[in-house]
Amino acid sequence: MATKKTEKKDPIAHLSELIHGIKVAMMTTVEEDGTLRSRPMWTHDRDFDGELWFFTREHSPKVDEVERDHHVNLSYSEPGKDRYVSVSGMARLVLDKEKARELWNPTLKAWFPLGVDDPELALLCVTVNKAEYWDTPNKRMVQLVGF
Amino acid sequence: MATKKTEKKDPIAHLSELIHGIKVAMMTTVEEDGTLRSRPMWTHDRDFDGELWFFTREHSPKVDEVERDHHVNLSYSEPGKDRYVSVSGMARLVLDKEKARELWNPTLKAWFPLGVDDPELALLCVTVNKAEYWDTPNKRMVQLVGF
Ligand SMILES: Cc1cc2nc3c(=O)[nH]c(=O)nc-3n(C[C@H](O)[C@H](O)[C@H](O)COP(=O)(O)O)c2cc1C
Repeated sequence: MATKKTEKKDPIAHLSELIHGIKVAMMTTVEEDGTLRSRPMWTHDRDFDGELWFFTREHSPKVDEVERDHHVNLSYSEPGKDRYVSVSGMARLVLDKEKARELWNPTLKAWFPLGVDDPELALLCVTVNKAEYWDTPNKRMVQLVGF
Repeated sequence: MATKKTEKKDPIAHLSELIHGIKVAMMTTVEEDGTLRSRPMWTHDRDFDGELWFFTREHSPKVDEVERDHHVNLSYSEPGKDRYVSVSGMARLVLDKEKARELWNPTLKAWFPLGVDDPELALLCVTVNKAEYWDTPNKRMVQLVGF
């Protein structure tokens, strides 16, 4: 069974390394009746400084959900590499076209065909409070502290 | 953006197909202060009939979490195949050595080295209430109904 261990190296740099290359996170939010829902969200593979940014439609169930209850979980899993990361944080809606332009990536056209000028395009900013990951060789869970 | 679509074929058989071959789910639970945590959990790839079974230690944070708030989310993601599934359900702790013996699989020795007779070995049974998945070609979200 997993022994819990706490990591002392810079947690922000370390989390950045852990999720590097995992393009899609499953974001779990809480519905009004307590139901937990998750959906795949495209993650930006750069500039992680304690916050994670996601694109969303401004009017969408997940935005309603995080506006009522800010808690979210982001799970990054890559079974092929046996890499699993859980990130707990608080999400808020950000309407900022400048920031959207800075983060925009053509891959996002699949969900936002109108591009960065889509009037529905908005951002979710997740402030990370806690992160845990599992390293394969001994299947231990490691807690990153210090966010 | 995803257009919501509702699937009419047998949802139980369909969910079973969708998660087939994805061995590890990320299970999200709610902590006392509302924090959402997730962790990888080994899934049984058979006999899905509306309930999903997992092995756990009887005394562990996730068991405390689901005993206080039964809601869980299971996310199955396989980035290689662009397959993402969200399952919302209610979890309960089950102490039943007979059932454990029936579901036991040697892979579980990694977390339960004492095997099925480990006195800490217990089961979590998740009753599925809702499932959603994303199919690649058009990135639509599909809701499975009828659980
Ligand atoms: C690939 C993988 C599969 C796992 N499967 C299980 C499992 O089936 N049951 C289990 O209790 N823990 C499993 N673990 C360990 C859990 O992820 C977790 O660390 C442990 O159950 C403690 O969780 P908790 O502190 O939230 O209770 C697995 C870990 C990995 C990396």
